[in-house]
Amino acid sequence: MAGPDPEQLAARVLDGDRGALARAITLVESTHPDHEVRAGAMLDRLLPRTGEAARVGISGVPGAGKSTFIDVLGRRLVERGRRVAVLAVDPSSRISGGSILGDRTRMGELARSPQAFIRPSPAGYTLGGVAARTRESMLCCEAAGFDVVLVETVGVGQSETAVAEMVDVTLALFLAGAGDELQGIKRGILEVVDLLVVHKADGDNRAPAEAARGRYRSALRLLRGRDVPVQTCSSTEDEGVAEVWDTLETRREERRASGALTRRRAEQAVAWTWRLVDERLRARVRAPAHEDAVDALLADVRAGRRSASAAAAEILRLL
Amino acid sequence: MAGPDPEQLAARVLDGDRGALARAITLVESTHPDHEVRAGAMLDRLLPRTGEAARVGISGVPGAGKSTFIDVLGRRLVERGRRVAVLAVDPSSRISGGSILGDRTRMGELARSPQAFIRPSPAGYTLGGVAARTRESMLCCEAAGFDVVLVETVGVGQSETAVAEMVDVTLALFLAGAGDELQGIKRGILEVVDLLVVHKADGDNRAPAEAARGRYRSALRLLRGRDVPVQTCSSTEDEGVAEVWDTLETRREERRASGALTRRRAEQAVAWTWRLVDERLRARVRAPAHEDAVDALLADVRAGRRSASAAAAEILRLL
Repeated sequence: MAGPDPEQLAARVLDGDRGALARAITLVESTHPDHEVRAGAMLDRLLPRTGEAARVGISGVPGAGKSTFIDVLGRRLVERGRRVAVLAVDPSSRISGGSILGDRTRMGELARSPQAFIRPSPAGYTLGGVAARTRESMLCCEAAGFDVVLVETVGVGQSETAVAEMVDVTLALFLAGAGDELQGIKRGILEVVDLLVVHKADGDNRAPAEAARGRYRSALRLLRGRDVPVQTCSSTEDEGVAEVWDTLETRREERRASGALTRRRAEQAVAWTWRLVDERLRARVRAPAHEDAVDALLADVRAGRRSASAAAAEILRLL
Repeated sequence: MAGPDPEQLAARVLDGDRGALARAITLVESTHPDHEVRAGAMLDRLLPRTGEAARVGISGVPGAGKSTFIDVLGRRLVERGRRVAVLAVDPSSRISGGSILGDRTRMGELARSPQAFIRPSPAGYTLGGVAARTRESMLCCEAAGFDVVLVETVGVGQSETAVAEMVDVTLALFLAGAGDELQGIKRGILEVVDLLVVHKADGDNRAPAEAARGRYRSALRLLRGRDVPVQTCSSTEDEGVAEVWDTLETRREERRASGALTRRRAEQAVAWTWRLVDERLRARVRAPAHEDAVDALLADVRAGRRSASAAAAEILRLL
């Protein structure tokens, strides 16, 4: 990748140059070892100007209406004078790549605001890979002056746990459904969520949403051993969205005032360091040069011809 | 560690020599790089004689009565002609180390049976470390002729997820309690368990246990989107223990007949290989020689003086 050196790029990001911000995120998303070094140097320059933003994770199964919700929430925040960045950690998301304004049909209203910045998921990434870059992208947005960062993730797989490890507060969008409504949300989101929202609570769906709210409250009390807020809202009617934000901001303010937010962020940064170390080590092991040898070893393991322990030793020898 | 070479040790384990089995497990528990190579060589020899045993995970919070349950269950299995190995993945477990017969006051009856083998948790290990060796210990037991391996784990932290990744079926012991009864069991056990048992269902506790059974059934149906068996039992009265085993064996037999068990075990072995690779890479990074440098980097990260990305690059350069 051609481009300015890390110092120049960092300076432009700090000036609030949107094009520079987009290029900075492209740099941190790169897995090329040279780019990782340059990204590290740039991030070190940006770091002193980060940390003031409200970092919010927004999770939800496909169909829960995350885009519409973020569009409405983002506009309300812009009206209140906030500058809002939206990062997607969702391989199924259909924000078409490239344009820094994002797709015109998804978060269409928000995307037109000069106070908002929407960054799509890079195509072709694994969930882990996307999440592994999202923290750095978030820091770039903060350095560019955005004071709310909404990190959107699909509520299945492991992405929401990774996202919870980088944000201050986490919200999950659910729908009123049949008895199996918590199915598919098995992987930890209920353990970390600060607020659960029953979305699309409008028209004929109002009463079912209210009933679902009660069931979710009971389920969360059982799982977490304490009360976790559950609210209903409708993005199309713009009902309850502001209240959702108020709950999140109250929760975040409690954490900030008690010092828990500072501690949480310090531990998140350390955990993230180890996550990056693991990821990069894993990338080296899985490099194309070793691919055939690793595949052969794993085929032996799968067939019971070789123990996992012996295969692991062989894989390490490849390094 | 002095001792026989891997081939000799493997031959004695295959002969069913209990002393050799204990030494083999000590070898696989070692984190010394030379021992890892020797353990790998030994395991490759044992591997063809493994795979026939029923691998059962038994999880439960401290106080749920796991030891008593395993003592009674193990004796019932021995009476049916099975050979039973018990491995503990529980740093809080009070099986005192060393003796291959295990502690005389814990699983006392079972420990006296020549058809049983009880292996305590190695002292001073982290949970991850214990679990990382338990799969290899399980294979050693199978090669020595044990056809049931019970892997005991405390139902908090990450050990039970690791155990679920190495067994055929998983059971969790709960107690009838107040409203917060699922608290502390947050980390995934409910997502993977094949059977939930309300233990100590005797005397005055019978009715509360039956009521708890209904609540657990509802909670599991919500979480998993399908019915998961929930049974009550009493180890002190020896009521319901045989029925618990029958449920587990039925579930395992369904998986075996459908071919799911073979696929599950193949994928477990591959996942385990990567777990070992990660663990050993991490151990190299955290080697004492690098400790001060890593600590200084992490202090910078914690204080916001350095980005996680730059620190990760520095840590990798240490390797």
